[in-house]
Amino acid sequence: MTTAAPSARVLEHPARAEIRLEGVLHALSDPLRLLIVRELSGPRPELTCSQIELPVTKSTTTHHFRVLREAGVIQQIYRGTAKLNALRRTDLDALFPGLLDAILTAATHQADRKQSSPSGV
Amino acid sequence: MTTAAPSARVLEHPARAEIRLEGVLHALSDPLRLLIVRELSGPRPELTCSQIELPVTKSTTTHHFRVLREAGVIQQIYRGTAKLNALRRTDLDALFPGLLDAILTAATHQADRKQSSPSGV
Repeated sequence: MTTAAPSARVLEHPARAEIRLEGVLHALSDPLRLLIVRELSGPRPELTCSQIELPVTKSTTTHHFRVLREAGVIQQIYRGTAKLNALRRTDLDALFPGLLDAILTAATHQADRKQSSPSGV
Repeated sequence: MTTAAPSARVLEHPARAEIRLEGVLHALSDPLRLLIVRELSGPRPELTCSQIELPVTKSTTTHHFRVLREAGVIQQIYRGTAKLNALRRTDLDALFPGLLDAILTAATHQADRKQSSPSGV
């Protein structure tokens, strides 16, 4: 009789002290990753990957979530077979006060400008 | 008799409306480029490339300044044979209020942590 494999898969996350500003800025320098972070800053702080609609393949989506996790921007935990994603807001606010909010505000400003300008800038 | 070539070389810069948040974050996701921006936010707002000491070759230094210019983070103008660099603070503050200051504060926090920790984190 074999024992069941552990069902709780745990993904690696950097500890708070390992999170680097450069890594966070790099993770957020992509429009789709910015979109993910904007979604996670909304009223539902925990979302599965499939609850955030991105115009790319599933493997590209997985890649973007991994970049965010490895940079310390999001936490990913398995619940059953789904990965639940959440911003690491407490860690980021402690390390870099005001940074996440400034980036989220800037992303919202940019999205608003884009919508109100026919040329898209 | 030939006419002299124009001495005023002008480098290309994105207009304010062309500056993208993703590009700014990408430009600032490198430790040396962050260092350049921190220097330009200091008491001397205009510096030549050689006044900012970086532990890399001159061509790599030139590359980093170009990335910052093309992203809209800095302005570069020729004065004689020297390039003078300055932050585009007015443009960045108008587009993304609070963002540049939040990033500069975060960079200072991180540098202070690094100095006070023997492990460098």
